[in-house]
Amino acid sequence: MDVRAAIAVEAGKPLVIDTVQLEGPKAGEVLVEVKATGICHTDYFTLSGADPEGLFPAILGHEGAGVVVDVGPNVTSLKKGDHVIPLYTPECRQCEYCLSQKTNLCQAIRVTQGQGLMPDGSSRFSMGGKKVHHYMGTSTFANFTVVPEIALAKVREDAPFDKICYIGCGVTTGIGAVINTARVEPGANVVVFGLGGIGLNVIQGARLAGADMIIGVDINPGRKAIAEKFGMTHFVNPKEVEGDLVPYLVNLTKGGADYSFECIGNTTVMRQALECCHKGWGVSVIIGVAGAGQEISTRPFQLVTGRVWKGTAFGGARGRTDVPKIVDWYMDGKINIDDLITHTMPLQDINKGFDLMKSGSSIRGVVVY
Amino acid sequence: MDVRAAIAVEAGKPLVIDTVQLEGPKAGEVLVEVKATGICHTDYFTLSGADPEGLFPAILGHEGAGVVVDVGPNVTSLKKGDHVIPLYTPECRQCEYCLSQKTNLCQAIRVTQGQGLMPDGSSRFSMGGKKVHHYMGTSTFANFTVVPEIALAKVREDAPFDKICYIGCGVTTGIGAVINTARVEPGANVVVFGLGGIGLNVIQGARLAGADMIIGVDINPGRKAIAEKFGMTHFVNPKEVEGDLVPYLVNLTKGGADYSFECIGNTTVMRQALECCHKGWGVSVIIGVAGAGQEISTRPFQLVTGRVWKGTAFGGARGRTDVPKIVDWYMDGKINIDDLITHTMPLQDINKGFDLMKSGSSIRGVVVY
Repeated sequence: MDVRAAIAVEAGKPLVIDTVQLEGPKAGEVLVEVKATGICHTDYFTLSGADPEGLFPAILGHEGAGVVVDVGPNVTSLKKGDHVIPLYTPECRQCEYCLSQKTNLCQAIRVTQGQGLMPDGSSRFSMGGKKVHHYMGTSTFANFTVVPEIALAKVREDAPFDKICYIGCGVTTGIGAVINTARVEPGANVVVFGLGGIGLNVIQGARLAGADMIIGVDINPGRKAIAEKFGMTHFVNPKEVEGDLVPYLVNLTKGGADYSFECIGNTTVMRQALECCHKGWGVSVIIGVAGAGQEISTRPFQLVTGRVWKGTAFGGARGRTDVPKIVDWYMDGKINIDDLITHTMPLQDINKGFDLMKSGSSIRGVVVY
Repeated sequence: MDVRAAIAVEAGKPLVIDTVQLEGPKAGEVLVEVKATGICHTDYFTLSGADPEGLFPAILGHEGAGVVVDVGPNVTSLKKGDHVIPLYTPECRQCEYCLSQKTNLCQAIRVTQGQGLMPDGSSRFSMGGKKVHHYMGTSTFANFTVVPEIALAKVREDAPFDKICYIGCGVTTGIGAVINTARVEPGANVVVFGLGGIGLNVIQGARLAGADMIIGVDINPGRKAIAEKFGMTHFVNPKEVEGDLVPYLVNLTKGGADYSFECIGNTTVMRQALECCHKGWGVSVIIGVAGAGQEISTRPFQLVTGRVWKGTAFGGARGRTDVPKIVDWYMDGKINIDDLITHTMPLQDINKGFDLMKSGSSIRGVVVY
C-alpha cells in the first residue's frame, strides 16, 4: 500500500515528505494506522548523522499512537480496531532478559531492530522498489507502519492519540526513571538536570512519588514556570551560581541529593549529577544519551563512600505492562501531558517541528496525521 | 601508662618499635589491651606517604582484637574483661547516617578521626611529651589503645584473637561487599578481580551466598589453589588471555557477570569490572582504594544499558551489629580465616610483615602481642 511518510533520505538533510510503499504484516506483525507521533531529540540525533548506528534512507519516529488495521498470522494479543502505542523497547515476556525480572531491556528482536529491519530480516518499507529502513522498530513518521506484536502496548480507547503518543517515549522515560530505576520514596530530595521533555517528566514523577525537595537545574530560565507547574520546588540556574555547582547543590539539599537525574546527555553534567548526591546513599541516574565515544569520569572515592551510578532506558518500563498504566494515570489526571505538548502540526510541517525542538522553543511537538 | 608500639614516624620510613605514653580513657572512651592485629595494605598506603591525608607521627593499625581493660565515664555497653574488635567505621546508632538505614558510614566522629584525634579533639598517645596521632580511630599497632565506645564491637570470649582480628577489616570488607552491598543471590555468576586478602574473602562470601560461577581474576597464578579452596570455580590469568579481558569474561559467563568486585585499587581494572557485567542488571562493586587523584571512566552507555556502578567501605557492615555475627560464622565453621593468616609475628618483626605483604608472599600477616 502507499503511505505518506517523512523520509530521512540522508544524514544532515531535512526529512522529505513523500509517498512510500508499505507491505502488509507478516507472521507476528501488526499493521498500525499512526494517528499521532511526537518528535524527539533521539530522532534528531539520528537524522543529524551523529548516531554512528544511523541508517539511511529510513522512516524515523518512535513516539506514536494509533489503531490496529490488520494483523499477520499468529498474532493473538491484538485485533483490528485496538488502540496501541508502539514500543521501541519490546516486551516478549519470554527471553532471558524479560524473565530475569531485573531489566526491561527485552532482547528478542534487538539485532534486526538495530539493523532497521523487521524480525525476519527484511523491511516492509520501500520506495521505487528500493528498501527503506525501519527505525527503532516503530517508524511512526508514516501514517501507517508495521510493528511486531511484542512491540505494541494495547491501551484504552478513550485516550486521545495526540497526547498519549508522548507516553511512547518521553513521559515513560522520565516518570519510569523515578519509579522503576531510582525508586524514589516519599520525603526524598531530588535534583533534575535539564528541564526539557524528559526532565519535566522526571519532575512530575518525583512529585508522584512524594519527593520533598524537587530541584530543577537548567541554564534556560524560561523553563522555571512550567517546571514549577509540574512540581519543581527549587530552580537553580548554573549561570547564576557563584563558584562550583556541586557544593552549591550539596548545601541546598543539606548534604546532597538522595536521587539525581541527568536528562541532557552531557557527560560533564553526568559527573555533577553523581557528585551532588548524598554520601552514603545518593543514587544518580543517567537518562540523557551522550555523543558517540564520550565518556563519564569520577574519582572512585565517590562510589566507595556510598553513591551509586546507574542509567535507564525507556524508564525501566516494560512497555506492554507499564504503558497502559501510564495512560490510565493520564486519563485519571495523576499526570499532566497536555502542558508539555506545546505544538501540533501536520506531517508536511515536521521539519518545522524539528527546528522548534532544536531552538528550545517547543517542549514537545506532535505531528497529527 | 607506657605502652609498646610500632610508630610511623615519617612517611616512607619503616615503623619504629618503641615505648609511647597512653593516657587513660575519657568520657565515652575505652582502654583496650590489643592482643593481635592484622597488617593491611591500607596501613602501608598511609605509611608510604601515598595517602594525602596521612598524618605523622602516628600509631597505625586498624585490624585488631583485644580485651577491655578500663572504661571512661558514661560508657554503658562495655565493661572490663569484654572481648572487642575495634571499628574504624563506628556505629553510633544515632546520627543521620546510622538512622537512614541506607549506609554503614556513621559520621558521629568522622572529623576528629580524620585528624588522628579522639572525639574531644585531643590525642591519648604521646612520646616524650609530644603528640602522636591516632589512626583510623583504632591504632592497633600498640599493645594498648584507647577507642571510643561506639567504635568497639563486643564479641564472644571463646574466639581466638589472632584469627578474629582479621574480621576488623579484611574479612568483613570482602564478605560484607557480597552480602550487604551487592546482595548476591543464589545462582548468580560472580567475577572477583584481585585474589589478595580482600578478594579471597569476596570469594568465600560469594560461596556463602550460593553463587554458581565464582571467577577469580589475578595475574599471580600462585593464588589459584587457595582461591579454589575458598570457593573459586574458575581462574582467569589476564596474562594468559588472548585479546581483551572483558569479552573473554562476558563469554565465560555467557553474557556477563551478575556481580563483579574490584579488590585491587586499580582504576583500569575498575572499568573492566564494570564492563564485564551483564547488560540489563550487572552490578559492579569497587572495594579497592585507588591512588590519590586517579579517576574511573566508562561510556555512559554501559550504565544506560543497565549496569550499576557502586562501591563499598567496610563491606557495608554496621560494625557493632554485624561484626559479632561474622565472629559467630567463623566459630561455627561457616567461613575460613585460618588459611588466610599465613604469617604471625611479634611486634618487633612488624616491618618484616609489611615486606611480606608488599612482595605478595603473605595473604595476611598478624602481629601477636
